[in-house]
Amino acid sequence: MGKTMAEKIFQAHNGGKEVKTGEIVFANVDLVMGTDATVPLAIGEFEKIGKAVFDPAKVVLVQDHFVPARDTNTANLSNQMRQFARKHGITHHVEVGRGGICHHYVPDSGLCNPGDLIIGADSHTTTYGAFGALGTGVGSTDFAAAMATGRLWFKVPPAIKVVLTGKKKKYVQGKDIILKLISMIGVDGAAYKSLEFTGPSLKHLDMADRITICNMAVEAGAKAGIFEVDDVTADYFKKYHKKKDILRLKADADAEYVQEIPISISDLEPLVAEPYLPSKVKGVKELQEIAVDQVFIGSCTNGRMEDMRQAAKILSKRRVHPDVRLIVIPGTYAILEEMAEEGIMETFIAAGASVQSPTCGPCCGGHTGILGDDEVCLSTSNRNFVGRMGSPSSRVYLANPAVAAASAVAGKIIHPEDLCNE
Amino acid sequence: MGKTMAEKIFQAHNGGKEVKTGEIVFANVDLVMGTDATVPLAIGEFEKIGKAVFDPAKVVLVQDHFVPARDTNTANLSNQMRQFARKHGITHHVEVGRGGICHHYVPDSGLCNPGDLIIGADSHTTTYGAFGALGTGVGSTDFAAAMATGRLWFKVPPAIKVVLTGKKKKYVQGKDIILKLISMIGVDGAAYKSLEFTGPSLKHLDMADRITICNMAVEAGAKAGIFEVDDVTADYFKKYHKKKDILRLKADADAEYVQEIPISISDLEPLVAEPYLPSKVKGVKELQEIAVDQVFIGSCTNGRMEDMRQAAKILSKRRVHPDVRLIVIPGTYAILEEMAEEGIMETFIAAGASVQSPTCGPCCGGHTGILGDDEVCLSTSNRNFVGRMGSPSSRVYLANPAVAAASAVAGKIIHPEDLCNE
Repeated sequence: MGKTMAEKIFQAHNGGKEVKTGEIVFANVDLVMGTDATVPLAIGEFEKIGKAVFDPAKVVLVQDHFVPARDTNTANLSNQMRQFARKHGITHHVEVGRGGICHHYVPDSGLCNPGDLIIGADSHTTTYGAFGALGTGVGSTDFAAAMATGRLWFKVPPAIKVVLTGKKKKYVQGKDIILKLISMIGVDGAAYKSLEFTGPSLKHLDMADRITICNMAVEAGAKAGIFEVDDVTADYFKKYHKKKDILRLKADADAEYVQEIPISISDLEPLVAEPYLPSKVKGVKELQEIAVDQVFIGSCTNGRMEDMRQAAKILSKRRVHPDVRLIVIPGTYAILEEMAEEGIMETFIAAGASVQSPTCGPCCGGHTGILGDDEVCLSTSNRNFVGRMGSPSSRVYLANPAVAAASAVAGKIIHPEDLCNE
Repeated sequence: MGKTMAEKIFQAHNGGKEVKTGEIVFANVDLVMGTDATVPLAIGEFEKIGKAVFDPAKVVLVQDHFVPARDTNTANLSNQMRQFARKHGITHHVEVGRGGICHHYVPDSGLCNPGDLIIGADSHTTTYGAFGALGTGVGSTDFAAAMATGRLWFKVPPAIKVVLTGKKKKYVQGKDIILKLISMIGVDGAAYKSLEFTGPSLKHLDMADRITICNMAVEAGAKAGIFEVDDVTADYFKKYHKKKDILRLKADADAEYVQEIPISISDLEPLVAEPYLPSKVKGVKELQEIAVDQVFIGSCTNGRMEDMRQAAKILSKRRVHPDVRLIVIPGTYAILEEMAEEGIMETFIAAGASVQSPTCGPCCGGHTGILGDDEVCLSTSNRNFVGRMGSPSSRVYLANPAVAAASAVAGKIIHPEDLCNE
């Protein structure tokens, strides 16, 4: 019987032994990733085990959530991780000012390859599916165990096949595809399942689109979101990592799925998820006038160079509305450097945006753009739960970077074409 | 009898009526400045008075201390100031992403001119003395009263004449001159006095040097620090504000001073203030090996383009030490833009620095680089008191941007020439 992509990956990490959906396997992991938000919690558990890390080159510890340190407490948490990294000779301890947000840093550093099995002590580890890897989030105890042994138990997830057809309209991004999907199946519609993306649209979806889609797969409850490896993936690995031979991961034609979901992306308009769920989705034109106090462009969901370019195009020769703060945070220092080189940095500054160095920042209520009482934020990030970005009475709307940039200028949530036709 | 610069300014703001040192005067102020750290405290007092602001164009409210918002509390404080600014039609409410740190924004926006009397609800309002203005910090209640009336009482301060001779060596900056002065007279050596800077060195001291010196005048307890207005000042106003006729403020030859302090700056070496006082000053070469965890370049003291260039020159083709975080925060968005244009932004990023948008940030223990327990920071800011930048057990050393950049590379406090000769 044919295999899904998830089954293939678990089989390869189970010593090649056949696996079946629903089966519990102890799999070898290729990478164990954690951040300043989660690793400090795991250190105690790890030290109880009393072992060295299984492979110092396969543990990645990223200072990204609360850096540069927001306060003494987070400074101390970062230091715990720093000291742990030194003690155990961790190869990839990603310091403040170097690297960036974990889910951009890991692939861009060549640490994630098609077919890999990666766990991260961060729920958006599903992002690595954009690169044909199975990434999934784990708690701090599992993280500690995997650091010690290089292995972890998994239930092989059933898969949902998402078949994408058609070509995106202008101003539509991966964000709209995943918001559409979440609105169709709900926030638990893919609970403990592998969302596997295929179809004729793939050739039109760049890595930034795929990152956004896989990143938010977890917002439908998915264990993983995985893109079939194609020429777009191959081009990325050739261009950025000089790798010519990558695993062309693809499900078998006769693989079994629990569900098959076709989505025509040709008709998609930019979408917005209203508070307080990523599944509460409307077309941007269906919304009543919604004034915004803050717009945030960035995060592990939409912090790519493509996202920055799309926003900058709209902001060029325009000014952020006087009543709006626009916070822009690229995903990595390499992207920040590229922004400076391409002149995009100047576009943002001239428009009146506050550009910060890579950090998760306001997305998870961390810092650099937290919302006060009753404030409204349009964000390119992944979650709009109650209090996610600050005060419990604040309201977060999720959208793509083009909608975000246009709305920052208009002072209210707006379709970019309505701004650009003005 | 001749007048000091402070006497001249108070006389001009006292309806031209003669003033004497020690006299209490009710003076008209040219500008009333406050920030998100202090204005929220003043709003209640102001509303009790029940008046409109005396002149909406002469009140400057700057969002700079905790922005983009660190947490819900500071977001709410910023919103209080925002709503106040809207209600009272304040012309200069400096929003996140626009402007920058108050003490750079005010002069760079042409809001501070030679001979002006400016009060600010921030102790480093003395900075404006670099531009021949008398700037001084006030508490929130005085700030509220001045917003309502445009007037405030002052005791006309006695003056100390600081006569600067000679020319700075390479790697010496205004920071070293003011640290030298503070080390000579102590942290209360100029308490409630006007520090008035003159002498043949002035032609060699650029506006960045003067800003640093006047900014830290308050660290010797001074009511104000004022530079004689000369061609350097005139060039600044011509270049940046197209102003040709500025008041050539200068003390009379027969003015009376309580003290005269000559400082030869030719012999000065880069200095460092050790914890926990700005007066605990040593030559950088006198220090024992002091490893640093963090280096901060920025603040109202050293956040100018000149400071950024000086640091970038040292960081060019070098890397920040792996065990050090380097936080760089320019004083205004205009400087950040200039950094991007000049390629300095890329130099910092390539070196491994975390460059943030303008904010007071870690200087006052706000955010973006707070110190954990027992950490050591070399900072270009103005205060190294216990707990100033985070944990009470952290230790802050103060130095100029060249020393800061060199130390970030070396991983310990070092004279730039020792790094550059390596």
